[in-house]
Amino acid sequence: MTVLAADVGGTSIRAARIDEEGRILDRRSGPTPQDPREGVALLRRFWEELGWGAGRAMVIAGGISATTGEITQSPNLRRWEGLRPGPELECQVHNDANGAALGEIWKGALRGKRSALLVTLGTGVGGGLVLDGKLWTGRDGSAGEIGHTAVFPEGPECGCGARGCLEIYASATAVARAAGAADAEAAAVAARRGDARSVAAFAQAGRALGIAFANVANLLNVEAFCLGGGMAAALDLLLPSMCAELDARAFRLARKGLAIVPAALGNDAGLLGAAWAALQV
Amino acid sequence: MTVLAADVGGTSIRAARIDEEGRILDRRSGPTPQDPREGVALLRRFWEELGWGAGRAMVIAGGISATTGEITQSPNLRRWEGLRPGPELECQVHNDANGAALGEIWKGALRGKRSALLVTLGTGVGGGLVLDGKLWTGRDGSAGEIGHTAVFPEGPECGCGARGCLEIYASATAVARAAGAADAEAAAVAARRGDARSVAAFAQAGRALGIAFANVANLLNVEAFCLGGGMAAALDLLLPSMCAELDARAFRLARKGLAIVPAALGNDAGLLGAAWAALQV
Repeated sequence: MTVLAADVGGTSIRAARIDEEGRILDRRSGPTPQDPREGVALLRRFWEELGWGAGRAMVIAGGISATTGEITQSPNLRRWEGLRPGPELECQVHNDANGAALGEIWKGALRGKRSALLVTLGTGVGGGLVLDGKLWTGRDGSAGEIGHTAVFPEGPECGCGARGCLEIYASATAVARAAGAADAEAAAVAARRGDARSVAAFAQAGRALGIAFANVANLLNVEAFCLGGGMAAALDLLLPSMCAELDARAFRLARKGLAIVPAALGNDAGLLGAAWAALQV
Repeated sequence: MTVLAADVGGTSIRAARIDEEGRILDRRSGPTPQDPREGVALLRRFWEELGWGAGRAMVIAGGISATTGEITQSPNLRRWEGLRPGPELECQVHNDANGAALGEIWKGALRGKRSALLVTLGTGVGGGLVLDGKLWTGRDGSAGEIGHTAVFPEGPECGCGARGCLEIYASATAVARAAGAADAEAAAVAARRGDARSVAAFAQAGRALGIAFANVANLLNVEAFCLGGGMAAALDLLLPSMCAELDARAFRLARKGLAIVPAALGNDAGLLGAAWAALQV
């Protein structure tokens, strides 16, 4: 059995045909149009090209109402807010970080974990929360928004309208900007060469993540944090300041044995999570 | 059937005999000794005076290891850390805020709620988290520590060793100190009379709570926050600044329909939660 999956991010749209073992059989991708009508049309074209699927699911960088399937809030895809892509594309719609968490549980770094927070560091910062071995989506489906946890409440304004959110400090975009680099990958190369500005950008992101993770560890006493998105390959540059904050702030029991792991599925985590969801129906 | 319950707080020890309907049939209380040996002896005496119970459980202001029953960390009862009161008192041991959450679910303000965070504002700030209708205690039993969530990470040092924890701003002790009052009740009286320093103390506490609650709402999308402890009666003084932060920071879906309610069981929530736990065995 094969299904069709898609991942609509702030930067690109990716689509794939995936089998029940999690093998990606064929794929398409392109830049995300600002106009949601164009985005839906592009997605429809990708899926037509990919052929038939027994089920379809998409993940998108935004909050999805569990009751209506509407994209309720998306700081990085503002014009997509209010859209209900499910009915016209005949697909399930999930938050992208929740999708990535599902993917990592199914085939990646979170296999066997009962409780974990997956954080995607990309254009924005998303989160997918696993509790008791299952995705926790909350009362209305909007849970997991760790990117908009206040780290420094009097800090700069975030795209969401609030101040000092984790996303301002720890998204791939934020780190590239702070490092004065073209992207997070270039910033990591510069930091590894010892460029002071890039080193400081990763230290600041790690610190913000450490504060947010300590809060989550104290509140939820989870087994693991998993880092995905464009910055996962730079986990080593984030760890020192992240762990310093965790050591200083997390309760001993919550800190002890806490795993901090990079995502294993790279950019395909959301696609695989969408496929897993499509396979369940 | 009746059981014996106890609640060991930073200030006082309370014990009671409680029946299966949650009626408190008899009770004892006294100041909490700094020396844990004296505390255990006092508790034993209270329970002897109260007579026989089919089960026994105590709640205490500290982290309890789910595996060993040890008091692993207690910022307000430092000398009790490392103690395992369960075996010698032949009782269950739970965190006090978790106990209060159980009590409020059983007989109080959280009846019927599937997801909620109870926050106790007393000598310290404790938390009890209900997810999917059950207490969420995490991997090792240490979940719920909202009191040691960083609100202003560069703020003053907290009893736990970290900086800027919610407890520094929002415990009854902190509000009384900021208001220059003998206790939180006196501060509330002064604030209602318009005393500027007291009004500011509650506004600051409400703001800190609002930031912490917005983070929890975005992460967990819970149905309700419930305020217990010495400050629950002053919820009206906390609400304006609390709601301003929630409105500014919580995602729309997470904010919509979010209930903020005072605890219904007053100082007896922990005792009732302990009784409920003792009745389950």
